[in-house]
Amino acid sequence: MNFQALAKKYDTPLYIYDFDYIKDRYKNLKTAFKARKSLICYALKANSNLSVIKTLAKEGAGADCVSIGEIKRALIAGIDPYKIIFSGVGKSDNEIKEALKLKILMVNVESEAELKRVEEIAKELNNAARISIRVNPNIDAKTHPYISTGLDENKFGVDIEVAKKLYLYAKNSKYLDPIGIHFHIGSQITTLKPFLEASKIIAQLVKNLIALEVDIKFFDIGGGLGIKYEDEKEIDLYEYAQGIFSTLKGLDLTILLEPGRFLVGNSGYFLTKVLYEKKNSSKRFIIVDGAMNDLLRPSLYDAFHKVSVVDEESSHSTLADVVGPICESGDFLAKDRILPKTKKGSLLVIHSVGAYGFSMSSNYNSRPKVAEIAIEDGIDRIIRKRESFEDLIRLEEECL
Amino acid sequence: MNFQALAKKYDTPLYIYDFDYIKDRYKNLKTAFKARKSLICYALKANSNLSVIKTLAKEGAGADCVSIGEIKRALIAGIDPYKIIFSGVGKSDNEIKEALKLKILMVNVESEAELKRVEEIAKELNNAARISIRVNPNIDAKTHPYISTGLDENKFGVDIEVAKKLYLYAKNSKYLDPIGIHFHIGSQITTLKPFLEASKIIAQLVKNLIALEVDIKFFDIGGGLGIKYEDEKEIDLYEYAQGIFSTLKGLDLTILLEPGRFLVGNSGYFLTKVLYEKKNSSKRFIIVDGAMNDLLRPSLYDAFHKVSVVDEESSHSTLADVVGPICESGDFLAKDRILPKTKKGSLLVIHSVGAYGFSMSSNYNSRPKVAEIAIEDGIDRIIRKRESFEDLIRLEEECL
Repeated sequence: MNFQALAKKYDTPLYIYDFDYIKDRYKNLKTAFKARKSLICYALKANSNLSVIKTLAKEGAGADCVSIGEIKRALIAGIDPYKIIFSGVGKSDNEIKEALKLKILMVNVESEAELKRVEEIAKELNNAARISIRVNPNIDAKTHPYISTGLDENKFGVDIEVAKKLYLYAKNSKYLDPIGIHFHIGSQITTLKPFLEASKIIAQLVKNLIALEVDIKFFDIGGGLGIKYEDEKEIDLYEYAQGIFSTLKGLDLTILLEPGRFLVGNSGYFLTKVLYEKKNSSKRFIIVDGAMNDLLRPSLYDAFHKVSVVDEESSHSTLADVVGPICESGDFLAKDRILPKTKKGSLLVIHSVGAYGFSMSSNYNSRPKVAEIAIEDGIDRIIRKRESFEDLIRLEEECL
Repeated sequence: MNFQALAKKYDTPLYIYDFDYIKDRYKNLKTAFKARKSLICYALKANSNLSVIKTLAKEGAGADCVSIGEIKRALIAGIDPYKIIFSGVGKSDNEIKEALKLKILMVNVESEAELKRVEEIAKELNNAARISIRVNPNIDAKTHPYISTGLDENKFGVDIEVAKKLYLYAKNSKYLDPIGIHFHIGSQITTLKPFLEASKIIAQLVKNLIALEVDIKFFDIGGGLGIKYEDEKEIDLYEYAQGIFSTLKGLDLTILLEPGRFLVGNSGYFLTKVLYEKKNSSKRFIIVDGAMNDLLRPSLYDAFHKVSVVDEESSHSTLADVVGPICESGDFLAKDRILPKTKKGSLLVIHSVGAYGFSMSSNYNSRPKVAEIAIEDGIDRIIRKRESFEDLIRLEEECL
């Protein structure tokens, strides 16, 4: 990738996504599951840029959405309603109503109270709402506490026993059509075992439900596939698919997948320019024009992203922190990395930022959100314009 | 405050600021320092809403800005250029140039490399740039590592010996006019001692510099005054002022202050509505319509904000987490609080969110930024409109 040319053309800081990589990842995952019916619903929260979604839509992807805003994005980008699922622990009445009116594939219900709300709203609309229920298999995915979601102590899903009760309730309701079952045990998981343990538990539940004449059609195994940020080893997709298949013997279900990070994480590069190097008695800092408002993961999760210097000349590398211009010690992109000497204007690339990069960005310190570009078939194009100062104050200026 | 009426009028989630409180805080601080010349430069990064700035501008406040965006906000809100200082570890060339052209009071320089850049840019403009230098007194403010800034190991400021060298360099440059000195040891500090220790060290440096004929006029003691979130005790303003005065005996300097959180922190309320209560075998969750994208401090700093239930009826209170709709375990507003039973539609108030609340908000999960309103003399008014879905996609849709 010609980062120098891209910086010149689009300025920095800049998000760059390799769309060919995203398409390849989609195809690899789809191929691994080809022996059975499957639907890959891209988890928009990882990166909801309309052009990213459109690219996956063209490959045949559906969408896993967690807000009405994401559902609208999916539709605008060309994903068919019958490939859209609506997840999330806190859907508002308006969101549920809009989603039902849009005739999406199903609403993924996360609590008993929500099930009743969906029923009431479906009744108002005089329709049966297609639903799945997120079941908590109580499997420890052994990941960062902020991104682990399969344990009892977190806010997601319902316990197995509650799930059974809710499915029977739904089956007997005129306004609920329980067609799916869902689990999601966490993010950035790099071992197969927790996936298969969870799948086995949920598959057993499906068998019990089918015996009770609950007609489950979709087996939603969620997302959570880990990617390589540093030295992680990705799960082999063939083993993943075969493992899931093995838990589903005797069940005729469409497997639904919700990859987010897996599809886009390693497609993304954050390009930033060195403003100064600074050294005090105990530390070396490379101060760059990108900051925690652009890429929050290092500050929020202490996440590791590989850093490289474009066209590095110096062979003498020393320890340095890569920090942004924001007035907080928490504003860093990388800590304690061995990096060559840089100078004003040197370009740094922060790797693997395609997921939860731009989507978590803010305007902290009155910094406009950066531009996003795509590279596809060797051609670069802008997919989101850089914000202007006027964009920042528009909704306030009218009130002044 | 009639939260029910405000929720009805403006919907939730909603940021509410008490402007009378903000004005009182400003006056109290100004009064404490009345025995000497002082200029209170509001640190915009805490809350950069134009109406908040305008309110402080009318009281006579200046502005402490950390980006050209913040400088523009200050100017639009009516703060005179000669009351604006430009701080921050990573100013770009364009930002420095614009700031100099706008003839702000001074640029607060954070490194040797930056000093040289400011000089070069001032030379291009054929002008002398008024500057201060941020000096690192190496005082431990004993606060959260992300908001502690006075130690050698962080990216801010320069050491005392470097500062001396830079002041002499600046004095001898035709394009630099060193008129101020600055220190800032951290945020949310609730003991006087580190402030006075730092002030004493920097005052001694000023005496040395004056002996070397560096004509320092502004003694910038930064911000960092802690506020009461939970059971903290605020520093007595009179003692603070007298303590600073005592370190400045024999020096005729204008004291510059950079309060942010102190002025606005406790003015702010985040109003959010209960969507569901949810209980599993080990936890009770109150799921509300506000989330980490609206208020990041609990997730990012593990910050404590008081939570209260509006018009609470139940006297039976139990432990609960207050969580948002975002698909992350890290999406919480409060953990392990004793709260009464709530129901769908109950209103919760998250307290003390006037600083680093809205200013750090994002669109994560495609959630539009919420509205902000002000209460002044008993009258409420909108000071930032709620974002629409169209606002979210505007800069992408054109690229699709």
